[in-house]
Amino acid sequence: MMSIGKKLINDPNDVVTEFIEGLVETFPHLQYLDGFPEVKVVLRADIPLGAYDRVAVISGGGSGHEPAHAGYVGDGMLTAAICGDVFASPSINAVLCGIRAVTGPKGCLLIVKNYTGDRLNFGLAAEQAKSEGYKVEVVIVGDDCALQPRALAGRRGLAGTILVHKVAGASAAAGLSLAEVTAEARHVANSVGTMGVALSVCTVPGQMASDRLGPGKMELGLGIHGEHGAAVADIQPVDVVVSHMLKRILSTEHVPIKRGSRVGLMVNGLGATPIMELMIAAGKAVAQLQLDYGLAVERVYTGCFMTSLDMAGMSISLVKVDDDILERLDAPTKAPAWPVGVNGPRPSTTLPLPLPREPSVHVTKSRPEKLDEQAQVLEAAIQAGAEAVISLKDTLNEWDSHVGDGDCGTTLSKGATAVLEDMKQHYPLNNPIETIYEVGASLGRVMGGTSGVLYRIFFKAAYVELKGNSGPVISAEGWLAAFEAAVTAVSTYGGAFAGYRTMLDALLPATATLKEKLSAGEIPADSLLSAAEAAERGAESTKNMQAQAGRSSYVPPEILTTVPDPGAMAAAAWLRAVAGAVAVAQR
Amino acid sequence: MMSIGKKLINDPNDVVTEFIEGLVETFPHLQYLDGFPEVKVVLRADIPLGAYDRVAVISGGGSGHEPAHAGYVGDGMLTAAICGDVFASPSINAVLCGIRAVTGPKGCLLIVKNYTGDRLNFGLAAEQAKSEGYKVEVVIVGDDCALQPRALAGRRGLAGTILVHKVAGASAAAGLSLAEVTAEARHVANSVGTMGVALSVCTVPGQMASDRLGPGKMELGLGIHGEHGAAVADIQPVDVVVSHMLKRILSTEHVPIKRGSRVGLMVNGLGATPIMELMIAAGKAVAQLQLDYGLAVERVYTGCFMTSLDMAGMSISLVKVDDDILERLDAPTKAPAWPVGVNGPRPSTTLPLPLPREPSVHVTKSRPEKLDEQAQVLEAAIQAGAEAVISLKDTLNEWDSHVGDGDCGTTLSKGATAVLEDMKQHYPLNNPIETIYEVGASLGRVMGGTSGVLYRIFFKAAYVELKGNSGPVISAEGWLAAFEAAVTAVSTYGGAFAGYRTMLDALLPATATLKEKLSAGEIPADSLLSAAEAAERGAESTKNMQAQAGRSSYVPPEILTTVPDPGAMAAAAWLRAVAGAVAVAQR
Repeated sequence: MMSIGKKLINDPNDVVTEFIEGLVETFPHLQYLDGFPEVKVVLRADIPLGAYDRVAVISGGGSGHEPAHAGYVGDGMLTAAICGDVFASPSINAVLCGIRAVTGPKGCLLIVKNYTGDRLNFGLAAEQAKSEGYKVEVVIVGDDCALQPRALAGRRGLAGTILVHKVAGASAAAGLSLAEVTAEARHVANSVGTMGVALSVCTVPGQMASDRLGPGKMELGLGIHGEHGAAVADIQPVDVVVSHMLKRILSTEHVPIKRGSRVGLMVNGLGATPIMELMIAAGKAVAQLQLDYGLAVERVYTGCFMTSLDMAGMSISLVKVDDDILERLDAPTKAPAWPVGVNGPRPSTTLPLPLPREPSVHVTKSRPEKLDEQAQVLEAAIQAGAEAVISLKDTLNEWDSHVGDGDCGTTLSKGATAVLEDMKQHYPLNNPIETIYEVGASLGRVMGGTSGVLYRIFFKAAYVELKGNSGPVISAEGWLAAFEAAVTAVSTYGGAFAGYRTMLDALLPATATLKEKLSAGEIPADSLLSAAEAAERGAESTKNMQAQAGRSSYVPPEILTTVPDPGAMAAAAWLRAVAGAVAVAQR
Repeated sequence: MMSIGKKLINDPNDVVTEFIEGLVETFPHLQYLDGFPEVKVVLRADIPLGAYDRVAVISGGGSGHEPAHAGYVGDGMLTAAICGDVFASPSINAVLCGIRAVTGPKGCLLIVKNYTGDRLNFGLAAEQAKSEGYKVEVVIVGDDCALQPRALAGRRGLAGTILVHKVAGASAAAGLSLAEVTAEARHVANSVGTMGVALSVCTVPGQMASDRLGPGKMELGLGIHGEHGAAVADIQPVDVVVSHMLKRILSTEHVPIKRGSRVGLMVNGLGATPIMELMIAAGKAVAQLQLDYGLAVERVYTGCFMTSLDMAGMSISLVKVDDDILERLDAPTKAPAWPVGVNGPRPSTTLPLPLPREPSVHVTKSRPEKLDEQAQVLEAAIQAGAEAVISLKDTLNEWDSHVGDGDCGTTLSKGATAVLEDMKQHYPLNNPIETIYEVGASLGRVMGGTSGVLYRIFFKAAYVELKGNSGPVISAEGWLAAFEAAVTAVSTYGGAFAGYRTMLDALLPATATLKEKLSAGEIPADSLLSAAEAAERGAESTKNMQAQAGRSSYVPPEILTTVPDPGAMAAAAWLRAVAGAVAVAQR
């Protein structure tokens, strides 16, 4: 099924000029020559025109390989990038304008990928510039290892070119002469090999999308212009793909890498391959290079450096390095597309899992032989609250079957049952703070789903508040603060607020009422009863609410009005039971 | 047609752990906790564990959004990233391990995207960490403008989260307290809005590729997990798409940007959209924000910051900025995925086209009234060479019809004719160097194709050599040097060498013979005749050559053996004619 490739563009004829306009908006150190549409030259805005006191390093070629080449313009890398139309060499005049704009007394080096059009256009521009009195050198890069012809002619310029840019740019920035910069660039160009694999073909703006590569197929030894690869194969695990690519590069005559060599690795995405996959390939390549080939991998560059529009796939480049080349690769640059953070010492990559700070605090607990007065109230309250939830199980499930997945009662009842069991076994009831911690732990042990996590958060937040601010005997204000902290945490992490038709519609009015009554000087047990009543009213009122969070938000309003929110009703029920138990105990 | 999505992976269950292994190989400042497969935590390798003297800034969430979040770990940004499985929240235990690993006395801030799973798991871990004595704050980011609910609940966390990371990381690096870092993070989270558009749906590793979006369709208000967008529409020019997205963001209640505001713009690729397209969108967005909305665009971030695996599309985020926020955004960071080169003064973006250095040198030329002796030989040589090519026109075309596109004779004859015409008009024949320049210019005026460019390069290189090293009367050695420079340039830029079945198979033996004879003391005219004979032998020998460059390299060997290379035969013919003319003139 052929159709025009989908692109975020305007007129396909304007993609390169509009790209450059966006580029210079993004990177203020870049400018372009006012020669659209023919002359598309991106250059550093921070050098004195015509008087640049370093060797200018210029590259370019067809567009569609972004960030190459304009993304490598910046102090320490390219001085200018000459952009052709998509996959088309720039004109002689465009190259010449670029040379004239940035070349100072020290001359310029043109780094050209080995394609006929680029060689000829850059070449004639170079000769013309020389005839105008400029010092010009040219280095042609052919790093492709896909075909193995006897000489440069069949070797395309691929992502390895970026490494040549970097070394030449750094040596130019260091103040070296044109001859020295050229020699370094040529040396790297002769030290790098690249092999590519494609999972899909790129689509040129305004053209039909190609489905040349069918499902389950990959193309090995690809070009970066949608040209056919050297071979089509069934797709393999990336381990195997990487192994094949490395073998090909390392068996290529022109790549001078032998066992024991120090190398740099570049894993380059072709445009549509996720960084996740590139990183997986990089990790596997490093392991294979070290173990299977006995190479020292000194640097790893993983990302999109030289793409082919929206092609899925990657290339792997290997460059032989020594201390001098590493110094150039590591030198700082302002070129935005050169990767950062790849230098520096390489420590052990894994760290042991950290243990909790206080590993023993909650380890040994047991129910005390004798409960003090506070503990007796606490036990009664927990018992009553848990039993209220258990007794409401079927009703909650019935309500939930209309507005959720029908297991609200089952889930909460399971948690309440665990609390009752654990309390008998090991709750340290004479320590109310640690008891609250244990309630949360019991719920965490058995409750799944969102409500399980929210109740764990509820008790954890209450515990943190109590632990930070209360002593062994907890005042009514202490309990209020804990309740408020717990409700706030449920709101924050649950993402719900008043009126969202959740348990908060019971808990929030309860908190407000408790606070109000205590502030007004009412006795705590009565205040708690009032709070429970507020919770009940709040829970009943959920019948009139639209759901804003959780599963109920997908249920039609006409069904919602027939039942209250089961989570809110459960909260009100346990709160009422707790208040009742506290009132009885304190009477 | 459904099929498994093509990926460069091994076992789909291992993608995140293998990603992390590749990540730490690429970036030596990163480490990970030894807790695979459950605990997948990437953290800075350059901080003292447990004693970090800054507020730790932690983020994370489901994987599949690379470089988010692990790519933002580094001095000045995140201290750790907690990675879940693809599109799945990390476990509470994983978050807790991350908190324990990097949090020092100043505490930690968790930056959480607004998804239920993330809120709950990060939230419970936060409460647990607090219960262990850590200082913990949480900021939840919901920057989505696709839906317009009345509160945070429906607003997903999207690429705007990265801006919150940066500001929080910079304020933590500046030594601020947990409360201050949290306040700054919350302020930015409340100042940013994001809107997305998708052209294709992402494919989760190991799952079927979806073709939910048909040809010509786009989805507006997308999520970053393959969930449906708010609306499907016909694809539009990117100008229109950007306009729609900006309108939506700027009409959203929670985004505090008004006419006159200063803003930062983030154009974020979703994984499979070329940088070219993102830059086009960025350029258009800047223009619209300035002209249509009266906003000052202070920073532009264009790239892939928060992706959705291999989804094609982009999101646009706008953040309100002031000097304080800009200081945080501009602060240096070692996080590898934060863009570089986006700060700094914003000069004029275009420069006028540079003129040639010596614009008047070749402007006024005319044929001299009277030719000196050297000029007479030169004229005779040029005349003879050009006529030889013209007379060979049909033969060259005939040969070329077998091995090329059949126009070799036509093209070369056209050039030769132009030379004869121009010579009569304006060649300054008493100045042989400028005459050579003019021969190249005549060819450039009329010849197309590769041979046209190569002959222009030939004469340009000869001119540069003569101009640099010869005086008004040119010695035989001077002509030799010019000839050598010209042939070398053709080889370099043409990418061909001896035996490639090109014109070089005539020119290279001619150069060698000329050099040899002159060195041996033979008289120049005889040396040139010998060179021409060598060229003829070389051209004839191309019948036995495989083509290595140019069009003939696609022609079967059995056809190649029947004809010589027409380019080589033409070169031999004009060289023989030139040699003959020189011999006659000097006799």
